[in-house]
Amino acid sequence: MDPDSLAKAFVEHYYSTFDTNRGGLASLYQDASMLTFEGQKIQGSSNIVAKLNSLPFQQCNHSISTVDCQPSGPAGGMIVFVSGNLQLAGEQHALKFSQMFHLMPTPQGSFYVLNDIFRLNYA
Amino acid sequence: MDPDSLAKAFVEHYYSTFDTNRGGLASLYQDASMLTFEGQKIQGSSNIVAKLNSLPFQQCNHSISTVDCQPSGPAGGMIVFVSGNLQLAGEQHALKFSQMFHLMPTPQGSFYVLNDIFRLNYA
Repeated sequence: MDPDSLAKAFVEHYYSTFDTNRGGLASLYQDASMLTFEGQKIQGSSNIVAKLNSLPFQQCNHSISTVDCQPSGPAGGMIVFVSGNLQLAGEQHALKFSQMFHLMPTPQGSFYVLNDIFRLNYA
Repeated sequence: MDPDSLAKAFVEHYYSTFDTNRGGLASLYQDASMLTFEGQKIQGSSNIVAKLNSLPFQQCNHSISTVDCQPSGPAGGMIVFVSGNLQLAGEQHALKFSQMFHLMPTPQGSFYVLNDIFRLNYA
């Protein structure tokens, strides 16, 4: 699979899991994984999923506007940069967001999220 | 210097150089550097600066809203994620943008930009 297709597939998987089964994201993170969510730093799969589960909305829907990707160096990682809209249940207007993921290869030939930074753009 | 201070210093240097002397950004990139600018992929310091110089505005001013950073792995790199406003000369409204940089250490103890992804948010 070429990097752009891989990035798109990851992004679709990530947000569909977020929107339907947030706890299922745990398998995408490891102990070394870092999330910075609106400036708050969280480390480790279980802490990250606890944070995502604690967000003050239960139902949401991400729609993706753009996905960019680049290889991140000799270790075989990939940077994925996303912009999109986040629609919260019961809210009239969607929120714009930007998010970047740094994916690193696993020995099993898959990827995990080493770096994750999320920001709302307050449009 | 701690990572957050380093990231802020880099960001201030990058955008003040962009706004006053765009060609001066060349020293921050190397041959392996990648820029994805609004979906267009460019590689190498000279090609990247040529692209930045070819943008259809001569005068601009970046103002920074947020800077997030994380270490990117054992190679000593750092991911810097920026959101802000881009004011073009003669335009009434600023454009919102998001940009990420993946900085890698140089043998001289400095950093260069390996990955650079820029997107306007069209707010």
